[in-house]
Amino acid sequence: MRKRKVNVAVVGVTGAVGQEMLQVLEKRRFPINQLLPLASKRSAGKRVRFKGKNLTIRELTRSSFNEIDFALFSAGGDISRKFAPLAVKAGAVVVDNSSAFRMDKNVPLIVPEINGADTQKHNGIIANPNCTTAITLMALYPLHKAFGVKRIFASTYQAVSGSGAQGIAELEAQVKALASGRKIKKAVYPHQIAFNALPHVDSFLKNGYTKEEMKLENEGRKIMHHTRFKASSTCVRIPVYRAHSVAVNAEFTKLVSVSKARRAIKNAPGIDLMDDVKNDLYPLALNMAEKDNCAVGRIRTDCAMKNGLSFWVVGDQILKGAALNAVQIAELIATEI
Amino acid sequence: MRKRKVNVAVVGVTGAVGQEMLQVLEKRRFPINQLLPLASKRSAGKRVRFKGKNLTIRELTRSSFNEIDFALFSAGGDISRKFAPLAVKAGAVVVDNSSAFRMDKNVPLIVPEINGADTQKHNGIIANPNCTTAITLMALYPLHKAFGVKRIFASTYQAVSGSGAQGIAELEAQVKALASGRKIKKAVYPHQIAFNALPHVDSFLKNGYTKEEMKLENEGRKIMHHTRFKASSTCVRIPVYRAHSVAVNAEFTKLVSVSKARRAIKNAPGIDLMDDVKNDLYPLALNMAEKDNCAVGRIRTDCAMKNGLSFWVVGDQILKGAALNAVQIAELIATEI
Repeated sequence: MRKRKVNVAVVGVTGAVGQEMLQVLEKRRFPINQLLPLASKRSAGKRVRFKGKNLTIRELTRSSFNEIDFALFSAGGDISRKFAPLAVKAGAVVVDNSSAFRMDKNVPLIVPEINGADTQKHNGIIANPNCTTAITLMALYPLHKAFGVKRIFASTYQAVSGSGAQGIAELEAQVKALASGRKIKKAVYPHQIAFNALPHVDSFLKNGYTKEEMKLENEGRKIMHHTRFKASSTCVRIPVYRAHSVAVNAEFTKLVSVSKARRAIKNAPGIDLMDDVKNDLYPLALNMAEKDNCAVGRIRTDCAMKNGLSFWVVGDQILKGAALNAVQIAELIATEI
Repeated sequence: MRKRKVNVAVVGVTGAVGQEMLQVLEKRRFPINQLLPLASKRSAGKRVRFKGKNLTIRELTRSSFNEIDFALFSAGGDISRKFAPLAVKAGAVVVDNSSAFRMDKNVPLIVPEINGADTQKHNGIIANPNCTTAITLMALYPLHKAFGVKRIFASTYQAVSGSGAQGIAELEAQVKALASGRKIKKAVYPHQIAFNALPHVDSFLKNGYTKEEMKLENEGRKIMHHTRFKASSTCVRIPVYRAHSVAVNAEFTKLVSVSKARRAIKNAPGIDLMDDVKNDLYPLALNMAEKDNCAVGRIRTDCAMKNGLSFWVVGDQILKGAALNAVQIAELIATEI
């Protein structure tokens, strides 16, 4: 399959996703010749561990991408907009984790288990979807294939690591401060996240939804090739460290059944069925953290709509929602090089 | 209005709701002649504080209700089923916080702001609704009056105090254990609640929903006098100490508008509008704890259905979801005595 080992740059290597990308590349034995860890000037000179060796982080510059085959970007939209085209010009294929190019019609937006074939039409940049979108679609797409989804209503229970290492640090610090009676500090979130639920992820749009909430519909349409798919979401940050949970009510065009739905999930790649309420079995953020696969449970016929199913899907948003999915995309391309 | 001071028994006075009932009775200057704190044999002889005095807790027995005008029950369904009829026989009016009588057609199920007039048809027992139901309906009912609700999809973010004082203790203990690297203990919840989200509140029914989840539809129909109301819920326990949050997608029969919805909320009793996303203003569990009123925010036209609104409602489930609502019911009846 793979014809030669490749040179891989990780842009934003000090972030939560960047760190995880290194681990995923190592664990999945991605055929790497040379790994180039890139970050801002502030982090240049520091070391990162990869395959038992310490690598020196280099500053991201316009000339970082000479002789790079793959550049995995996870340093925010502005960095991607500026440097991804330079990486492409230098001959690299970019897998971008930011939202910068996701809705660009010249850029494939990929969940390998769903629309991996779309990578064939790339022009140098391939986009990695929003984390909540990727996790929700891992459960929804097999059901869509079975029953034809029309629309969904989704409410999320999102972990603080979705805001990067600072999100984790803020929750930890607030829990500690409260335990010792000190005042809490806020920087990442506009309100206390410890022992609270914030219906506010990403910035607000004119229609009253947040950007994060509309991604499920917009990115969902592109990934599933389903232009009329509708999704109304409420995205909520909760005091969980890792893995996002999503409660979904989905309406389909065809007659649904729970047993058929379970079978569809069982036969789908990358998603586990964890659905035995008699034994208190359903996916939990705590158990799905650091797992490659997502999991779905609480599958039931929706009592408020015809052809409806309700379910609960959980996935590690740093893995399937970001680093793992990005490396999976790179694997698809690597087979072509 | 009130003709004479009354004798009030609080059954289950040592519980989280029972304790709160005492505070609410005191704060609202309920016209009490004598307060009788009742609990199990285990707690008999202990003291509770009420209006600056220490009262001795008595054991709940068959003869506890002589000369009692009001008995506020919050000691679980079994206690209510056994002792509420005895209290009625002794001449008391029972306000019951358990689910024992809620769907009994001879028992009014009351949220005073919505169907207070239904208390007129009581036969001695009046039921207090499920906490999540009461909070959700406080926002939904004014919108129903304005636009005619057909159905809702709701996902909850429920506080541990909904499981009583033990729920609070379990979360506190788990947070402490994790901070000091000790193993966590589980008793109230089947899985770790600290830094997790459990899609499991109350026991599971054959249709795959939990009892808690179906209450919103069943109790909602009775309270709103709306037999065709549909509600599909996912009830989730999260590591929040007090106040439940609910994300709602609601479909109406009439054309909706956000400005009309806001006006309907503003004009409704017991519910505050907290909806200014430009200033990061929306209700939060942390801010709504210990507040009498519920609050609603994030009101927006639903992007996935015609005549739909999405919103986020938060309320203190020990107050409006239990103790406050029960005392409000007693106040309605007290005006008749």
